[in-house]
Amino acid sequence: MVTVGIDVGGTKCLGVLLDDDGRVVVERRAPTPETGAALVEVLADVVAGLTADRGGGTGHEAVGVGLPGLVDRQGVLRAAPNLPGAIGLKVAAELSAHLGGASVAVDNDATCAAWAEFRMGAAQGRRDVLVVTLGTGIGGGLICGGRLVRGANGFAGEVGHMVVNPGGPQCPCGRRGCWERYASGSGLGRLARERARLGAGVGMTELAGSVEAIRGEHVGVAAAQGDEEALDVIASLGRWVALGLANLVSIIDPATVVVGGGLVVLGDALLTPVREELTRLLEMEGRPGSVEVLAALLGERAGAMGAAALARSPADGHP
Amino acid sequence: MVTVGIDVGGTKCLGVLLDDDGRVVVERRAPTPETGAALVEVLADVVAGLTADRGGGTGHEAVGVGLPGLVDRQGVLRAAPNLPGAIGLKVAAELSAHLGGASVAVDNDATCAAWAEFRMGAAQGRRDVLVVTLGTGIGGGLICGGRLVRGANGFAGEVGHMVVNPGGPQCPCGRRGCWERYASGSGLGRLARERARLGAGVGMTELAGSVEAIRGEHVGVAAAQGDEEALDVIASLGRWVALGLANLVSIIDPATVVVGGGLVVLGDALLTPVREELTRLLEMEGRPGSVEVLAALLGERAGAMGAAALARSPADGHP
Repeated sequence: MVTVGIDVGGTKCLGVLLDDDGRVVVERRAPTPETGAALVEVLADVVAGLTADRGGGTGHEAVGVGLPGLVDRQGVLRAAPNLPGAIGLKVAAELSAHLGGASVAVDNDATCAAWAEFRMGAAQGRRDVLVVTLGTGIGGGLICGGRLVRGANGFAGEVGHMVVNPGGPQCPCGRRGCWERYASGSGLGRLARERARLGAGVGMTELAGSVEAIRGEHVGVAAAQGDEEALDVIASLGRWVALGLANLVSIIDPATVVVGGGLVVLGDALLTPVREELTRLLEMEGRPGSVEVLAALLGERAGAMGAAALARSPADGHP
Repeated sequence: MVTVGIDVGGTKCLGVLLDDDGRVVVERRAPTPETGAALVEVLADVVAGLTADRGGGTGHEAVGVGLPGLVDRQGVLRAAPNLPGAIGLKVAAELSAHLGGASVAVDNDATCAAWAEFRMGAAQGRRDVLVVTLGTGIGGGLICGGRLVRGANGFAGEVGHMVVNPGGPQCPCGRRGCWERYASGSGLGRLARERARLGAGVGMTELAGSVEAIRGEHVGVAAAQGDEEALDVIASLGRWVALGLANLVSIIDPATVVVGGGLVVLGDALLTPVREELTRLLEMEGRPGSVEVLAALLGERAGAMGAAALARSPADGHP
């Protein structure tokens, strides 16, 4: 059986075709269009392209799609700050109609990535797993007792808008002090600019051209060159990551936390302070047992691979 | 089939005996002893007493116990700030031995209360439910897709130590700004004292004798007499309750939130601001769908009833 998965991002769509063993056989990219109608066309084109790349035929048995927003259990996109033209789109129904009635599963992109890391990636063989994707924002997915937690509407795992500091910076969601204001790529840039305004972070400022131009990427580049102040900013980021993770561990008690998303390129500069601070926060409570923190393994393909895996088999029945 | 459930609190144990239909037939109380060995004796006595009250015999088929702390899946109490003498106690194994090999299920008290509200109380017939118990501290239990979420160690649902304000007041757990510093009975007292120090809250201060003596109970009594400042303090409490609930809704997406614990006596003075602020926070995000907020129905018996229900049938298989 072969299956297609497509991860729809704010700017590009990444599609993969998986073989029977869950390996990526071919891959395709396309720009994300602005309207819902065009999005369905693009998704259908990616499916057709992947099938053609593989050598023709209509061998795909099922198609999965990950979308950057709240997706209900009927495969309708219900909220999506980075894809406003597609809100309300019945993605599952319309894409299925376009593909002659093919089976189409649609889910949140981070939920798809979490499922991929659980079934094929860093958390293979575990049963109680929290996956967080740290990118521009923060996404997440929860696996409890080997089952994907979807919630009443399909919206579970939206961990980025957990408020961790009600007096903190304004979030585009309208609240103040959401976790993703601190523990994301944009949080990293903000933490670095705050330091640079106090006169620290000369290396990062030079890379960026000015204090106000510093972004998360500049911190990463400076840290890779051994810049101590950049490493220090990443350690601060790590403590914010750990604060949110400790909250989530208290709430859902996973044995394994997988950290994915763009910030994973920071490697141990990020994960070592995350592990240290998480251990400290959990021990403070007198909580027995430990939580392993692993780097995601599937990189930018995680969402597409997970969408394909969810299309192939429902998420509820796995051991 | 009859079943016994016992809820162990910091000061007293409350035991119930349920009939086939889940109704409480008899009830017993006993002081909570300080040591683990004495606790097992007391639990066995409560079981024997309930059976005798019912008319003798050894008709109980299973015994459930709810404990105020972290209970692992083997029924061992692993952490318990209010029951330090019993930490490490193998409650399930030892009580079973004391009862001649009876089947004994042991779980966290708030988990038991959540299960009771789901199976027999306010959330009967729902599938995705969050139960929070607002007392001196905050406990919680999660039901996702009709299944109790236990977590890797059995510690899921410890929502009270979610940090919502890292610069906030010190928590006995060692962290700062845990949700239960704000949204509990002790949080209510603290919010009232903060106002009274600024010269407000004359009614509450008179009831308590002095500003520093104001406790949550005084706020409740003043509010019941129509004291506007007390009602205002309760509304502040409600906004803190809603802030944490909004976090939890983002993370696990329940359709129903049940609010239990001692603070439920505040009634709509508390629940109306909770509902208003929760709706505001969720709409801010552009999140479709609504979340119902219900008062718990089972009162102080919830923990014991849930422990009995968990002893009678495992929590994972229900629709």
